[in-house]
Amino acid sequence: MVHDILITNIKELVQVRERPIQKVSGKEMSYLPVLRDAFLVITDGLIHSYGSMKDLLPDSTAKHCIDATGRFVFPSFVDSHTHLVFANPREEEFVMKLKGASYEDIAAAGGGILNSARRLQLLSEQELFDRTLLRAKEIISTGTGAVEIKSGYGLTIHDELKMLRVAKRVGVETPLTVRTTFLGAHAVPSGKTKEQYITEVIDGMIPAVAAEKLADYIDVFCETGFFTVDDTEKIVEAGKRVGLTPRIHANQLNRSGGVQVGVKTGAISVDHLENIGDEEIEVLKGSGTMPVSLPGAAFFLNLLFTPARKIIDAGLPLAIASDYNPGSAPCGNMPLMISFACIKMKMTPEEAINAATINTAYTLNLSQTLGTITVGKVANVFISKPISSVASIPYSFGSNPVDQVILNGKLISTNAT
Amino acid sequence: MVHDILITNIKELVQVRERPIQKVSGKEMSYLPVLRDAFLVITDGLIHSYGSMKDLLPDSTAKHCIDATGRFVFPSFVDSHTHLVFANPREEEFVMKLKGASYEDIAAAGGGILNSARRLQLLSEQELFDRTLLRAKEIISTGTGAVEIKSGYGLTIHDELKMLRVAKRVGVETPLTVRTTFLGAHAVPSGKTKEQYITEVIDGMIPAVAAEKLADYIDVFCETGFFTVDDTEKIVEAGKRVGLTPRIHANQLNRSGGVQVGVKTGAISVDHLENIGDEEIEVLKGSGTMPVSLPGAAFFLNLLFTPARKIIDAGLPLAIASDYNPGSAPCGNMPLMISFACIKMKMTPEEAINAATINTAYTLNLSQTLGTITVGKVANVFISKPISSVASIPYSFGSNPVDQVILNGKLISTNAT
Repeated sequence: MVHDILITNIKELVQVRERPIQKVSGKEMSYLPVLRDAFLVITDGLIHSYGSMKDLLPDSTAKHCIDATGRFVFPSFVDSHTHLVFANPREEEFVMKLKGASYEDIAAAGGGILNSARRLQLLSEQELFDRTLLRAKEIISTGTGAVEIKSGYGLTIHDELKMLRVAKRVGVETPLTVRTTFLGAHAVPSGKTKEQYITEVIDGMIPAVAAEKLADYIDVFCETGFFTVDDTEKIVEAGKRVGLTPRIHANQLNRSGGVQVGVKTGAISVDHLENIGDEEIEVLKGSGTMPVSLPGAAFFLNLLFTPARKIIDAGLPLAIASDYNPGSAPCGNMPLMISFACIKMKMTPEEAINAATINTAYTLNLSQTLGTITVGKVANVFISKPISSVASIPYSFGSNPVDQVILNGKLISTNAT
Repeated sequence: MVHDILITNIKELVQVRERPIQKVSGKEMSYLPVLRDAFLVITDGLIHSYGSMKDLLPDSTAKHCIDATGRFVFPSFVDSHTHLVFANPREEEFVMKLKGASYEDIAAAGGGILNSARRLQLLSEQELFDRTLLRAKEIISTGTGAVEIKSGYGLTIHDELKMLRVAKRVGVETPLTVRTTFLGAHAVPSGKTKEQYITEVIDGMIPAVAAEKLADYIDVFCETGFFTVDDTEKIVEAGKRVGLTPRIHANQLNRSGGVQVGVKTGAISVDHLENIGDEEIEVLKGSGTMPVSLPGAAFFLNLLFTPARKIIDAGLPLAIASDYNPGSAPCGNMPLMISFACIKMKMTPEEAINAATINTAYTLNLSQTLGTITVGKVANVFISKPISSVASIPYSFGSNPVDQVILNGKLISTNAT
């Protein structure tokens, strides 16, 4: 049997797990198993085998052989929270904020989520796809192999469906594994009351999304001024009835009760968590809900970071995603999120890499196929530039550690991305 | 006459100055002149001409024509403060710090500047050059065209000279414009008293550096626990006697008097300035000394950022550099420094780009040849990826805005870097 890819002389093969695991929690998060001086064999899109170089049979070969001397091999990052489908960057709002404009000033100038919605509504599905594709290629070049993409800048049935179709098409036309989330309840469009819009979301959008099988998950922006805990419960329960799993925007701006409603409704994740205390941590214990931190938004908005140490030290798991979006986190660079996790949230490199691989995979129900180097899993890996330790990723915070990318067992030309 | 390079359809040609300027200060810093829909002609390594596309003669041609539709052209960044020559990254100290180790713990474990010195002393000049070359190529890929490089990890005559020879060789073997700084007074090596070492710096190292013409500048780490104001004055005056211009590490950790001694000794720049107040600002007024902020270090060490608004609003100029070094700022990515300047220090994109081009050029006595798009200046520019405004650079904080690099009028293959 001739294998597809054989990578030899790997300095460290990172996140090697003999058996698939679901997620890692608490103290386990500081354990990141590596195999030094290793080889990796990929066939038919899957991880076929790996081992120590001393155990590699002398006549081993493959269609494509890569000498990884001095380099590490990591499982590709799983970015479990993005708004990758949008029309335009919003750097004009960024500049307004630098000059002291308040949230209200920006809203009065037509900014915010409604700004993104207005622009997105003007684009054809093809135009929107073309713009999204550039971002998809960029995140591939920084090591992401699987990505969650939300709707929520449509705010009409037509445009929400358009966004989700574009998101799903990214999964077809790029090697990224894509999971989609219906986030109709991202903001209330102008000209409607919140109650009118919630009715439209529940009676119009959710059935339409389900009929076209466009989403895997349902999300609500549960924050003061947006959707309440009761709104959130009502909307996600409607989503659950058509088979969508909840994942919730919770506790970014205040202690909104978002964590509690997430756990109550069986959300697979609660995301943001900049504002949580002991009560939220207690609620998360024993639940299947993954706390997810989005440090890019905290960095960009100059807000608090998620209290990662408190969460992990309480024995909970923690995941890290990018929140890539044009308003509060215009960045899908997962190595930089790992830097933020370490430098700003005092996670160790091992914890941060677990958080950005297996724990994000858990929230997308991808633990069985992605997030670790395990025989039989999908071969989504990247070969690093020459580095000296896994700590290089957070330490070299302005460098892209990724050299070569392999997704679904195929070498991707990152120069083309 | 056939020109070397013709770039057409430039969306915005940035930092266009009809006449050379020395630096920009105060309110002038918010003015970043651009020419929209422009062309740029490069010949014999210099900027030959530029103008509006409507004024481009129809038969204009060049050996190499580049269509920059949708792209911006910027003058290359000038990074006026780096420690690019070092032996090894120090990520093990980074991990110790994440886990709560104090500065004293790290020093006791053999860390800090003395750690870098010990490792550098073990390397041959060739090994040291090879490692430095990788970093030089990386900073070229993120838009740097000129760089200051300091000694200071040698701490013996032999090793300080070795570092400076390596730094100068970077200027010969790469297209980077390099200026070198003798920073013997970076730390006191073990086994010597401070007084013994200062004598060695003044009587041994400075004459040796001068004899080999290895440095343009002299620097001192003027901080509590390192070198006092009096030490600093004594050392830089000795440097001045052999033609070295002072530039000072000042006010990073405390109000050390570094700014005052910098201005008193005619330093071209005082760098760091995280801890300054009205007194230091008053001293800088009317001086020729450029305040330089190094936001990568503040980010990485979780310290205060330089009060940029206070400095600029007082009418002073401000420059931004990377401080690339293995201990406190393992990053030479100037676009990311511009992001920090805006997001963390509330500079506008225009101010930050002025700070990272013409104002850093001033501190290296390169204002006449670099830092702006001006006819007759050295053709150090980069062509951006498609972007929508200059604000894209700080806004897209995890993206490299640089697509193609031209240094000394020659197109550099960034894929190779």
